[in-house]
Amino acid sequence: MLEPGQLVMLLNAKDKRYFVSAREGEVMHTNEGILHLDEVRAAGWGRQVCTHKGYPFTVMRPTLYDLIKSVKRRTQIIYPKEIGYIAMKLGIGPGCRIVEAGCGSGGLTTALAWLVGDTGKVYTYERREEFYTLCRENLERIGLAHRVEQFHHDIADGFHPHAADALFLDVRTPCDYVRHIPGAVAPGSPVGFLLPTTNQVQDLLAAMQDGPFRQIEVLEILLRRYKPVPERLRPDDRMVAHTGFLVFARTFTSLDAESESTPDAENATDTLTDEN
Amino acid sequence: MLEPGQLVMLLNAKDKRYFVSAREGEVMHTNEGILHLDEVRAAGWGRQVCTHKGYPFTVMRPTLYDLIKSVKRRTQIIYPKEIGYIAMKLGIGPGCRIVEAGCGSGGLTTALAWLVGDTGKVYTYERREEFYTLCRENLERIGLAHRVEQFHHDIADGFHPHAADALFLDVRTPCDYVRHIPGAVAPGSPVGFLLPTTNQVQDLLAAMQDGPFRQIEVLEILLRRYKPVPERLRPDDRMVAHTGFLVFARTFTSLDAESESTPDAENATDTLTDEN
Amino acid sequence: MLEPGQLVMLLNAKDKRYFVSAREGEVMHTNEGILHLDEVRAAGWGRQVCTHKGYPFTVMRPTLYDLIKSVKRRTQIIYPKEIGYIAMKLGIGPGCRIVEAGCGSGGLTTALAWLVGDTGKVYTYERREEFYTLCRENLERIGLAHRVEQFHHDIADGFHPHAADALFLDVRTPCDYVRHIPGAVAPGSPVGFLLPTTNQVQDLLAAMQDGPFRQIEVLEILLRRYKPVPERLRPDDRMVAHTGFLVFARTFTSLDAESESTPDAENATDTLTDEN
Amino acid sequence: MLEPGQLVMLLNAKDKRYFVSAREGEVMHTNEGILHLDEVRAAGWGRQVCTHKGYPFTVMRPTLYDLIKSVKRRTQIIYPKEIGYIAMKLGIGPGCRIVEAGCGSGGLTTALAWLVGDTGKVYTYERREEFYTLCRENLERIGLAHRVEQFHHDIADGFHPHAADALFLDVRTPCDYVRHIPGAVAPGSPVGFLLPTTNQVQDLLAAMQDGPFRQIEVLEILLRRYKPVPERLRPDDRMVAHTGFLVFARTFTSLDAESESTPDAENATDTLTDEN
Repeated sequence: MLEPGQLVMLLNAKDKRYFVSAREGEVMHTNEGILHLDEVRAAGWGRQVCTHKGYPFTVMRPTLYDLIKSVKRRTQIIYPKEIGYIAMKLGIGPGCRIVEAGCGSGGLTTALAWLVGDTGKVYTYERREEFYTLCRENLERIGLAHRVEQFHHDIADGFHPHAADALFLDVRTPCDYVRHIPGAVAPGSPVGFLLPTTNQVQDLLAAMQDGPFRQIEVLEILLRRYKPVPERLRPDDRMVAHTGFLVFARTFTSLDAESESTPDAENATDTLTDEN
Repeated sequence: MLEPGQLVMLLNAKDKRYFVSAREGEVMHTNEGILHLDEVRAAGWGRQVCTHKGYPFTVMRPTLYDLIKSVKRRTQIIYPKEIGYIAMKLGIGPGCRIVEAGCGSGGLTTALAWLVGDTGKVYTYERREEFYTLCRENLERIGLAHRVEQFHHDIADGFHPHAADALFLDVRTPCDYVRHIPGAVAPGSPVGFLLPTTNQVQDLLAAMQDGPFRQIEVLEILLRRYKPVPERLRPDDRMVAHTGFLVFARTFTSLDAESESTPDAENATDTLTDEN
Repeated sequence: MLEPGQLVMLLNAKDKRYFVSAREGEVMHTNEGILHLDEVRAAGWGRQVCTHKGYPFTVMRPTLYDLIKSVKRRTQIIYPKEIGYIAMKLGIGPGCRIVEAGCGSGGLTTALAWLVGDTGKVYTYERREEFYTLCRENLERIGLAHRVEQFHHDIADGFHPHAADALFLDVRTPCDYVRHIPGAVAPGSPVGFLLPTTNQVQDLLAAMQDGPFRQIEVLEILLRRYKPVPERLRPDDRMVAHTGFLVFARTFTSLDAESESTPDAENATDTLTDEN
Repeated sequence: MLEPGQLVMLLNAKDKRYFVSAREGEVMHTNEGILHLDEVRAAGWGRQVCTHKGYPFTVMRPTLYDLIKSVKRRTQIIYPKEIGYIAMKLGIGPGCRIVEAGCGSGGLTTALAWLVGDTGKVYTYERREEFYTLCRENLERIGLAHRVEQFHHDIADGFHPHAADALFLDVRTPCDYVRHIPGAVAPGSPVGFLLPTTNQVQDLLAAMQDGPFRQIEVLEILLRRYKPVPERLRPDDRMVAHTGFLVFARTFTSLDAESESTPDAENATDTLTDEN
């Protein structure tokens, strides 16, 4: 028996995904009839229930992939293919503390919150009220809001001094905020960026050239699907050809910087100093 | 000050990676001179230390990406681009319990162990003594062995009844073991496979056709790197064009299966029954 | 002044292509009004004419790329990206004689006929009446029919002994016809195949293994488009991910084969023996 | 019997290519022994001859693909995958007249000269003496020099008024020469460019924005090879990931331009006016 309110993914016979919080006594309307959510909870993971018209739905526990697909979005999305790689490069795992801006609809925020567990924390910045709210709603629906601290700030004013383990920027002009990054993360932390255009990548690389960054990398990830037919295996006719360019790097403190008298002071001016 | 024995990544001026356990009183020999590991520990993350010849090295905390790169290997590897996506699709995160076979050198095992945290568990099967041992050594060096239960078994005899949350197979003929999968995982669990050739994918798809699998997908992930030069941004001349095809699916229990009298008994014959 | 009946490509303001044979005294109806084809002919290549509503159209001489786009089709098409490479690999150029089966809608036939010039010849086989006729209509409209000899034959019975310079097969089961190939081309000729699925490629390769083939290659060609915006240069969001796999090889006569007594007789049984 | 001096491709047992002009009475030295070229000529296309050590070589007529591979090069090359597509887009075929700059080692020049036949002509510009000479040597060796008119000019001074059917630029800063293009080709002609970096593409697109260009396209072509093993069909491990971006467009004469009084005069200043 699943917990009341548990987020459930239901698959119809054609594997189309439906998401619902399985609240006690409630029903879900589908094109193939009505499902009683108490029956869904009683069936449990991997089992099937039928609508009042007799159409079977399979009850699935959403994976992280599914959760990201379930995020209500009003923005360009970060795809799972990028999120998985970002997590690897930034070393996201249980207990990790990471800074993110902007959160957009909260797709990446959801993934980060899932991965850091209850011992970690995601600090996410968003200046647009609309997305700040949408992100919160998505996190609450999925049950991950307690792992996320949201800031309704414009990062043009810098970040709080989180001394975080990693940082990710999905904003239009990251080149403008590069100087604030060392103030937000612990020295040596991995940082990442997602950018749609080659011009933005060029501008970001130029901005990073003089900063405390090492192992600068630019890449893109392509995912190609195949028709899963054993006797006629072939790639799909069409594919998503572009979501964005990923840029990665690591901060560091050079020996020269350490011998200077005021590196910390300088960084301090790049961080928000309010009580949060 | 880093802990004694802490696994450290050191970058030379050209960003070449060196891994070392920073034991008290020990030194590391490089082509650019000798590094005192006590100095490395004292410097801390993101700082620089010099060899006796004066060459600077930067002290970095390895991310998951770096750890996978540090795995000593005697097998074809699973790349981070695949691992990140596998983690997303299989819903790997803190507290997750996952079955894997075979472990090979332990690259994927390392990633899974990192992601599940201390509250999760990885069950890994390997029939070849050589890789069983190599995987253990890699896990111990990285400090993740306590999260992994290794089985020196041939999965032709089936899996233990782990009722795990997910399962991943990186073996030559997964088509031969498909029937054992429902006995190893909880109903509805996501499963994945990595396969180098189109023939293997065809065979696997054919074997899955009659089994309790939904949402069968075949795909491949391509990573394309760019030269990070702002005024001459362009893709690298060459790239890795193929590591393997990924196949994903989810188990389920059909209404028909449930109405049969002996589904569990049938599954039971597919599982190892020893005391583990 | 363009010739009467000349095939013309007209571009509207949004670069949408229209094809028309500019016959004397005729008009063309578009969504943006009526064009007088005598005015089109009088304007000439690269010039603009206006519809009776005042919308400008630009008069363009169709390139080979445009002609292929203009082919009326009822079949899966061969794309220009494949055709260009096929032409290179098979050495198609002025004076070349090439065998093709099946012609389908005539897209590749058009390209081959264009490339071989008036001194070359394309021999094309098609067993389906419908496509035999469609191909002819397309060739006549474009003005290339005189360079093509069409055969309404099933190649299961073999080819005529053309001793051609090259051969290309775009049929469902080329593995069934491999043994007929040496009877159709001169020794050492390049041959090519287009196949949608991996299974077909495997079958073809298996069939070629014992035949007189060298330099066997399998490949696919991907074309990725970019949005041509200088200040926001980026790949298109979507792309065609698969048209087909290309297989190439060259026939040859081994020393062993030459020492045998009846190689020509053997080949002869593989060729059609009617009067051609 | 092949003609004396005929350019021949010889394949050893491992399909490695050797190119030689089969002159009377001469020999070719290989790692596998000496080949008598009279024997090669006597054997003919598709047949095998043996070295004095008994190793067989197969005599092949070079296709256009092979000829391009045979070009002696001291520059970055244009690959056949690009050349085939360029030919399609620019409508290169028998009788075509095309302008090219710069010729580099002559790889594209060779392909264009092959495709236009004896009734067409390639006008190729190169300012560097070294490549001007190298291109000529390559064309003469292959026997295509009579179809090419070479200009040892810097196109910063413009082109001759060829009124050509098409134009292709493979130069570092094509943006500098865009204004000269209408003076070199007939109105409505297709033009193309090859550029290694995204920055160059951006600059070119910006330069074209105000010019008489339609149907501007940016794309790249990727070729992925497979191991041709029927029972283990899979992509090669590595591939060429980037050769260059292709930009295509068509010139046109707008109605506005025609109503101006001096369009031709203006173009004239962009063309070389010497007697050639």
